[in-house]
Amino acid sequence: MSDKNEEDKKNNLQNLPIRAYLDQTVVPLLLQSLTELVRERPANPIEFVAQYLLANNPENAQAQEKK
Amino acid sequence: MSDKNEEDKKNNLQNLPIRAYLDQTVVPLLLQSLTELVRERPANPIEFVAQYLLANNPENAQAQEKK
Repeated sequence: MSDKNEEDKKNNLQNLPIRAYLDQTVVPLLLQSLTELVRERPANPIEFVAQYLLANNPENAQAQEKK
Repeated sequence: MSDKNEEDKKNNLQNLPIRAYLDQTVVPLLLQSLTELVRERPANPIEFVAQYLLANNPENAQAQEKK
């Protein structure tokens, strides 16, 4: 049933209006990353945000748990 | 002189207000990545944005030119 719900969720995402789609996919983590970026102001801001997204991606966390 | 200007630019970034700092570092490329994201709606939205940032990071492009 969990897989079925995952499937439904993905299908719904495809049909969402743009703003809702963004809010339900990347916006919460993006805002976190920008908060950290502003706090640190590192030498490579774009790289910093990209690495933050990869390191804190909830989907990756699930994948790692399965290992 | 180019190095001096780079240095000045970095120092200025450190002192910018938050919104201006974000606008001058990651926002233009982030907006591009979100436009692409909405167009493609891939299976892994966060990963997609992170990879887009890395692939289109102007600083990386400069680094590659130097090779």
